[in-house]
Amino acid sequence: MKEILANLQKRVDINERQLERLLEAFVLTNDFWEAIAISRLPFNTVVEASRQLYSEGIISFEDAGRVVLTEKGKSLIDIEKYPPSNYICESCKGRGVSLEQWQELLEDYRRTVEGRPEPLLEYDQGYLTIDSTIARVAFADGKGDIRKRRIIILGDDDLLSLALGLSRLPEKITVLEIDQRLIEFIERVAKERKLNIEVLKHDLRNPLPSELLGKFDTFFTDPVETLKGLEVFMARGIASLKGEGCAGYFGLTTAESSFKKWRDIEKLLLNEFGVLITDILSDFSLYENWDYLLDSIKKDLPPLQQKPEALWYRSSLFRIELLEGYKVSNEEGQGEIYLDEESIAWSGRENR
Amino acid sequence: MKEILANLQKRVDINERQLERLLEAFVLTNDFWEAIAISRLPFNTVVEASRQLYSEGIISFEDAGRVVLTEKGKSLIDIEKYPPSNYICESCKGRGVSLEQWQELLEDYRRTVEGRPEPLLEYDQGYLTIDSTIARVAFADGKGDIRKRRIIILGDDDLLSLALGLSRLPEKITVLEIDQRLIEFIERVAKERKLNIEVLKHDLRNPLPSELLGKFDTFFTDPVETLKGLEVFMARGIASLKGEGCAGYFGLTTAESSFKKWRDIEKLLLNEFGVLITDILSDFSLYENWDYLLDSIKKDLPPLQQKPEALWYRSSLFRIELLEGYKVSNEEGQGEIYLDEESIAWSGRENR
Repeated sequence: MKEILANLQKRVDINERQLERLLEAFVLTNDFWEAIAISRLPFNTVVEASRQLYSEGIISFEDAGRVVLTEKGKSLIDIEKYPPSNYICESCKGRGVSLEQWQELLEDYRRTVEGRPEPLLEYDQGYLTIDSTIARVAFADGKGDIRKRRIIILGDDDLLSLALGLSRLPEKITVLEIDQRLIEFIERVAKERKLNIEVLKHDLRNPLPSELLGKFDTFFTDPVETLKGLEVFMARGIASLKGEGCAGYFGLTTAESSFKKWRDIEKLLLNEFGVLITDILSDFSLYENWDYLLDSIKKDLPPLQQKPEALWYRSSLFRIELLEGYKVSNEEGQGEIYLDEESIAWSGRENR
Repeated sequence: MKEILANLQKRVDINERQLERLLEAFVLTNDFWEAIAISRLPFNTVVEASRQLYSEGIISFEDAGRVVLTEKGKSLIDIEKYPPSNYICESCKGRGVSLEQWQELLEDYRRTVEGRPEPLLEYDQGYLTIDSTIARVAFADGKGDIRKRRIIILGDDDLLSLALGLSRLPEKITVLEIDQRLIEFIERVAKERKLNIEVLKHDLRNPLPSELLGKFDTFFTDPVETLKGLEVFMARGIASLKGEGCAGYFGLTTAESSFKKWRDIEKLLLNEFGVLITDILSDFSLYENWDYLLDSIKKDLPPLQQKPEALWYRSSLFRIELLEGYKVSNEEGQGEIYLDEESIAWSGRENR
């Protein structure tokens, strides 16, 4: 194990426990994409590690890109270290919130978003499942952050604004969005259903317009997961809030953000913005698979030529809250915010 | 509202959203103790605020210390801002983990801890409910932190060591405990049931013995909630772990730690210890009520003369993980670690 780890560490940032968990993931599933989710490692780390593990005969690939741990691979790990199941509560899918009281909204929202625009690589899009969207609303409502609140959504490929609008709970919903297709979709539905949603075309790299500063109770965003992108999205969110006690929600993946990046983000929130992290709920949100995935990556391993079937792309839900001493910044975001070496689309960037 | 807030702020650290939530809590329940839990404010803040709210005729007290919001109080808030229920999943009590596969352990543990020593003020004791203890085991097992792992428990009034021991899952369990009664109880059960538990008498203010440094995969602790206490408990836990990928679990309340203290603790973890916070699960754990409570506080409000019935004392579950760059310290803890002005027992300290 030590030798294999040392070989891997020449190529990727991985520790022994992470390697152990990755190999376990290949026992728990033959679906490469699902194994990425189980490992909680970045997509690019798993792919690069898998190239090496394959060349050392530790994993092999079968029909349709299915991955298996070889006998050599199995001899490296103690399968009994990981539980056979993960005890996720069936009723709430491990989220802790019940959607029982939200079924009517859920069905209305499901019908309403039919025909939505497909995700685009250009804006790093990809959207939450219907369940995950409504679960965010329910969780935030339980915290007192929805009813009669002024809510801002920074980038809305998830169409969360429509879920909130249809709930009729918030006082007002404002969406900042760059994609004309989404703007038109949201505006059309809002008009048809008489929802209190305002949509503004805005590139979040640019500072917030002054009329939006300090005006909201709650923000939601699924940020671009580069550190620069996150800094810009968090800055905009925090600058939009009225003050102490107001809250922000965002999703963060392990697929595009290593735990080291998570630590950098937490430090950013605490040290640069002075806010509190009140909740971190692992893998709270699932995303629908998106069509451009295979076009955005290097396809040199068999599983990377197969569209994923499982909902493998997940994010953890963070809630932050403003306390006395928090800091506002509303400066221009400089340079590349959409891509870093942990982005899934990093390996395919030369193709474009 | 502004005037009442300004008056309150002369006495306690509270913001508008917090006051709003406290008043809502008094609508949602007449049980003062439960209102403390709903408000997510420190016990001492709620008590001091309630003295003032009572003197201004915003709340009143009824038979058996029940609290009600007066008409004047009701006129101050918009009850529609808070949801009528909090959507907590019934099956898992909002924890996200199912205990279905743990029922046998749960019942065994319940029988085993009968006759356990009662909590003592001297060591800031108070123990988790049976459910909450087993839920911690289940959650940590789902993360891969239990099976065949070496586990250390820093202070074990919860008797978590016995739950872990009875599960037969960890490789080894080590308990550091100061209270001779608990040491004897754990040792007796461990001997009777042949559990792989080692108990060492240790005051956590003192550095860890060198033979325990860097030896464990996982630590658990319910720290004393002063900043000094937390620093000492976290230092001991982190110093006991083997290295990267190893994890620590601890509970943190809102009853004895304001959100400002939460922020200080998060900063401590990230900046001083360089570890990552991977999970924060609000109100994951409930505690049994303890006999010394009323003796430890100033009883100048009617509800403070009544023993609580509801399980009002709750903690959120934090999981931290060691990443490259984490820092170890094993120095002596100086001064008072058991009491600060957010401690429940602060107001009654003159009686002792």
